[in-house]
Amino acid sequence: MRFGLTLLLVFLSIICEASCQKNYTPQWLENNSLNIKIGNDVMIISHNVSKPFIYLCSGQVNFTEFRGNFFVNNYEAARVPLGSFRKTGNTNTSDTFEFSFGSLALNVTFETTTTYPLVVSFSSLPTGYTGLWVRIAATPGERVYGLGEQYSYLNLRGRMYPIWTREQGVGRNKSDIVTFFADNFGGGAGGDYHTTYFPQSTFLSNRKYLCHYGGYNYAEVNLQQPDFHEIFVSGPPDKFYFDTRGSIKELTQTIAKNLGLQPELPDWVYTGAILGVQGGTELMLDRYQKAVDNDVAVSGLWIQDWAGVLVTSFGKRLFWDWHWNATYYPNLNSTIDVLREKGVRVLAYINPNLNTAGSLYQEAAAGKHLVMNTSGQPYLMDFGEFLCGIVDLTSLEARTWYKEKIQLNMIDLGLGGWMADFGEYVAADGAVFQSGETGRQVHNKWPLLWAEVNRQAIEERNKTGEVVFWMRAGTAGVGKYTTLMWAGDQNVDFSYADGLASTIPAALNMGMSGIGITHYDIGGYTTAAQFQAFGQALIRSQELLLRSAEAAVFTPLFRSHEGNQPAANVQFYTNQYIEQCFGRLSRMFVHISNYTRSVAQDNSLFGTPAQRPLFMEFPDDSDAWDVTYQYMYGSRLLVAPVISSNVSKMNVYLPKGWEWKFIWDGKNYPGGNFTQVDSLIGFPPAFYKVDPSDHRFDDMIEQIRSKFPAIPPLLTTPTTPKPIAAGMKLSVQSFCVLTAVVVALMI
Amino acid sequence: MRFGLTLLLVFLSIICEASCQKNYTPQWLENNSLNIKIGNDVMIISHNVSKPFIYLCSGQVNFTEFRGNFFVNNYEAARVPLGSFRKTGNTNTSDTFEFSFGSLALNVTFETTTTYPLVVSFSSLPTGYTGLWVRIAATPGERVYGLGEQYSYLNLRGRMYPIWTREQGVGRNKSDIVTFFADNFGGGAGGDYHTTYFPQSTFLSNRKYLCHYGGYNYAEVNLQQPDFHEIFVSGPPDKFYFDTRGSIKELTQTIAKNLGLQPELPDWVYTGAILGVQGGTELMLDRYQKAVDNDVAVSGLWIQDWAGVLVTSFGKRLFWDWHWNATYYPNLNSTIDVLREKGVRVLAYINPNLNTAGSLYQEAAAGKHLVMNTSGQPYLMDFGEFLCGIVDLTSLEARTWYKEKIQLNMIDLGLGGWMADFGEYVAADGAVFQSGETGRQVHNKWPLLWAEVNRQAIEERNKTGEVVFWMRAGTAGVGKYTTLMWAGDQNVDFSYADGLASTIPAALNMGMSGIGITHYDIGGYTTAAQFQAFGQALIRSQELLLRSAEAAVFTPLFRSHEGNQPAANVQFYTNQYIEQCFGRLSRMFVHISNYTRSVAQDNSLFGTPAQRPLFMEFPDDSDAWDVTYQYMYGSRLLVAPVISSNVSKMNVYLPKGWEWKFIWDGKNYPGGNFTQVDSLIGFPPAFYKVDPSDHRFDDMIEQIRSKFPAIPPLLTTPTTPKPIAAGMKLSVQSFCVLTAVVVALMI
Repeated sequence: MRFGLTLLLVFLSIICEASCQKNYTPQWLENNSLNIKIGNDVMIISHNVSKPFIYLCSGQVNFTEFRGNFFVNNYEAARVPLGSFRKTGNTNTSDTFEFSFGSLALNVTFETTTTYPLVVSFSSLPTGYTGLWVRIAATPGERVYGLGEQYSYLNLRGRMYPIWTREQGVGRNKSDIVTFFADNFGGGAGGDYHTTYFPQSTFLSNRKYLCHYGGYNYAEVNLQQPDFHEIFVSGPPDKFYFDTRGSIKELTQTIAKNLGLQPELPDWVYTGAILGVQGGTELMLDRYQKAVDNDVAVSGLWIQDWAGVLVTSFGKRLFWDWHWNATYYPNLNSTIDVLREKGVRVLAYINPNLNTAGSLYQEAAAGKHLVMNTSGQPYLMDFGEFLCGIVDLTSLEARTWYKEKIQLNMIDLGLGGWMADFGEYVAADGAVFQSGETGRQVHNKWPLLWAEVNRQAIEERNKTGEVVFWMRAGTAGVGKYTTLMWAGDQNVDFSYADGLASTIPAALNMGMSGIGITHYDIGGYTTAAQFQAFGQALIRSQELLLRSAEAAVFTPLFRSHEGNQPAANVQFYTNQYIEQCFGRLSRMFVHISNYTRSVAQDNSLFGTPAQRPLFMEFPDDSDAWDVTYQYMYGSRLLVAPVISSNVSKMNVYLPKGWEWKFIWDGKNYPGGNFTQVDSLIGFPPAFYKVDPSDHRFDDMIEQIRSKFPAIPPLLTTPTTPKPIAAGMKLSVQSFCVLTAVVVALMI
Repeated sequence: MRFGLTLLLVFLSIICEASCQKNYTPQWLENNSLNIKIGNDVMIISHNVSKPFIYLCSGQVNFTEFRGNFFVNNYEAARVPLGSFRKTGNTNTSDTFEFSFGSLALNVTFETTTTYPLVVSFSSLPTGYTGLWVRIAATPGERVYGLGEQYSYLNLRGRMYPIWTREQGVGRNKSDIVTFFADNFGGGAGGDYHTTYFPQSTFLSNRKYLCHYGGYNYAEVNLQQPDFHEIFVSGPPDKFYFDTRGSIKELTQTIAKNLGLQPELPDWVYTGAILGVQGGTELMLDRYQKAVDNDVAVSGLWIQDWAGVLVTSFGKRLFWDWHWNATYYPNLNSTIDVLREKGVRVLAYINPNLNTAGSLYQEAAAGKHLVMNTSGQPYLMDFGEFLCGIVDLTSLEARTWYKEKIQLNMIDLGLGGWMADFGEYVAADGAVFQSGETGRQVHNKWPLLWAEVNRQAIEERNKTGEVVFWMRAGTAGVGKYTTLMWAGDQNVDFSYADGLASTIPAALNMGMSGIGITHYDIGGYTTAAQFQAFGQALIRSQELLLRSAEAAVFTPLFRSHEGNQPAANVQFYTNQYIEQCFGRLSRMFVHISNYTRSVAQDNSLFGTPAQRPLFMEFPDDSDAWDVTYQYMYGSRLLVAPVISSNVSKMNVYLPKGWEWKFIWDGKNYPGGNFTQVDSLIGFPPAFYKVDPSDHRFDDMIEQIRSKFPAIPPLLTTPTTPKPIAAGMKLSVQSFCVLTAVVVALMI
């Protein structure tokens, strides 16, 4: 007994020893300089009197908004460098310093916690001050990744990233003519390189550290300076968290675990495509039958219009009143059962906004479940000829009410899942929330609350692992709730900033922010046939649809969308040939599903994302760090999706130190080079790492060649793609002509 | 004798009394607030501890440049509010205060000088600090004018204006498709609302004060805040000058006198049009003869290609080697004499850059008259397939050398004047000047130096009042040298931001910055036929040419330009009908020349600009303050140029308190209203103020009706304008279609 007690005490003291030590190294010369390092000499803070690491700001952040497109103006009247410092306290695990300028002072505590070797926290902002700039030491060649779902660049260094969830934008490139049209004739909807549904103040550095800022208020991450990164945080500052690990992969796993591992996908999603269809029960079943007839592997039918449609002057819109519309979808309940027996789920759609003309709105208003305005009335937003109330997700009662609606109206109906859309529109000012918080405080947190409602609805019905929902809006921590993200609304084009290509950096950066399971709308979403008036129609081509489906073979979910103008777009059902090609790719997705499942488990167990940048697997290959549009799918498959029009060959970089087998010719290619391979439509360029120590999936990959021969007309009758990708067209067609302009304009 | 001495002493003491008093009123409560007022209760400085009027900055201003298009990034690492203050000294005419934050302090002296009631000066910047923000008290409804030549807005309030001379841009409106093309395919040449050849840190306020910052380094004038204006000045701060007067007109006259009154134009410019022609002696004379045959009143022939042309892959360019090219212009010397006998001057072109292939470059390099690079070689700039050296205008020797070239090669040849082009391209970094200054110090000053060289060349040859030169680049003080400005390179369209319309706010703001004599290229300059590939050709139409000539009747100079793509544009000589219409307007310009001369004298004697905003003449009419695109030409004529396509009626605002006679129907209209009048091509809408106390020009104006009947085909055969104004076309054609986009993009 005594021995046992002693042992316990020894054990406790070891724990204390381990947990009480400081896992950071401060070095300072009072009123001169202060450096804080973690791990193996990784400098995090490099402060000196003339170049402080912290600045107190006073100013205003002003937001203007139009339909989810936010324009932010951060006006800083003062930005005071807190150069002087002195130590004011310490504990076993922490050191506190006062940083000051004249009488203006802020206490900063550096601390080791059980989770992080270095956590930096701050005393309250002095009166009149509204924010902080915090600098993190950087080196000129340092690379930075993450910040949530960033579409335009993989390495984020050299740019400024606002952290504010919003519409991702249409075009997202101020040099692209689609963006220009969307900006000037779409209420400023063009977006920019940084606009995203899912920004997150978390990044990883190739200097082998991670930085996570814990607050949700508006922030800016400025990665433009050579010797520091700087982060602006508005309002009362939250904590900064730092860790260091031996590799990007370990850092990724660390952040995923710390923020919450993503639940596993239901197994049925691997049994085929989820087909985005709509238009009522009959049409849904008709599309299904034709798909089956053309050998499409089908796991689900996704009907976004299950609650009915509205006719506005702009065409059909969904009716935002989230329950089964039995007029529009007669017998949906029994149809769901019939389909389920065939192994096919029906999936639907919901968002946290309620059309004032619907019954749910009335119920929510009566139950006081809505966000209010300052006059005590429901805060209404115009979503385009209809007004909506917003369920107040800051209220436990409202969340419970809405969760029960999801359970009753969706899960109990037998749905296999849904798109949990929106979550980005919460106004910065003028809305009143039951939590007492302001719009500025809850705006970035909304996706987390929205994800939680969906997840709890499923868990309480014991449908985890059966029902899936997918979200576009995100923030730090959303991973522990959401089963799945999707990449939002790509343009139906090949553009780097907002087309098929953009889904790759989006997935990779999201993966390095702790969310490793995502997918995208096959064929893209945003269609603008009306741009035809300018010779720049944005319409989905057959080529884009099939290239997009090719790439989706190597993602965790294979789901199509008709786009916002279905009639203008090529669809998987447009003709039998396309349907057969699409079907072949859907079966390819199913063929590799055992591999996909193991890759997805890597995420749910260890936080290793399904899609990984090459350098995550091959950090010692310096050339691998420069590759943006290829990725490792798990640790074996290297995928190089075709992301341009009119391509029949691809140059693929194969990492050093391994042999690589091209899945379509079975030949081995040495790593450390670019290798040119065929990339005809239907044959997505992918290689697998030849690894004598691991033969688990070799047979499966080898079989692809024999199991998926070309569909006859595919190679013999080349099809003519419709006009695509306005931005691409412009640049291809005109760069040579127009480079002359500036010179010709001069005398 | 004694009485005389006493009288003298009394007189001197009165002078001292007058000059030694402080003409500003400081009111302060130490370490609380400090207000400085001038004149009749005009608050200039409103400082308090928590909202200081001065901020010390440390940071970097970074410039990138492509062919005169500068992109400025003002990064401010710190911006320290100097809230505390204490009085540290005073004299009879001044008070000095120390403003500080902690140990960081700056002395600010408020002083009355013989010229200004309030001059604010600063002690040196503390080590590590690189600039200042200075706030001037403002009221929410306050209006601000001036800042040099500002094209896009008359009232500048609500926007930020960088002070950095540069290319004005092509399109100058980020919502305009021409700007988009120029930005993306013209090396970022699109410009913006603030880009101008002639920015100046001087403004007038309707609160009846003027503010002038005396420095030439990069500055920013931010007019976006409700309760203050703020001005950023980089580098060692110069002085701020303030004055107050009873009206905008008096403020305008004050600034013009203080910065230097503009010399008077030669009288011959009022005798007809200066025709922009080129292509050699024969073609010049041929154009002239046809013009005379069609009753064009001709005062000059402007041949920009007098020094020859270069053929590049982009077409013909001028050969930048500034002397008569006798091969290209045979017998030019004798031709000049012949033409002069007919009362016609020949005018040419020069700029401060020298083609390395020319003889002047060789001479300048040998004489060490060129700007150098840091390697001790001439600093060369690529102007489009040819390289140039830049005459070092900071060197008295170089200026003298270049002045003599102007005298020998231009004045002595018998030229009547020239375009003194460029002056905006001086690099911020990397160039070495003989004065020892940096590019940042001399960049904004360059136009002043360039103007001085031209002026001195003329004065030393005693040709003042005979020879005219016109400039586009400008800065504070350029008025005392330059005989004439021109509005730079308008697009050949009706756009507000960069077309015909933009010349009106440009002239009015320049007038309120101290430069009251300006003009523009009739028909505009920047042509981009190549935009036809996108259905947006930027080509001059007949309508634009004639509307532009109409408006020029009521400016001090009537000069045409063929544009940068002459063959694509409609020209005054395109056909006989156009030539007759143009001729009729040129004679109208001559007809009112006595009036124009008196208006121009108002400028040279008193600093009252020729073109004046309505509120300068009618400050008590509150509605007059909202009129941007009409102006008073002198004090009698109200001009409302037609600045849109397809207009046959105009609504013209007539100021309160007077009757107004429409020059084309002779009828009187009461002021205080908008009046609709006809505005057919050839009949520029203008009114004259019916003033019983002043009949000086009544007859002249009355005669216009009878002397200038319509040219027969003008009204009977309407002509079809060619495609014009891409921006306009886009907005007219598509606004309705495209406003639907954003909604259609949403589910």
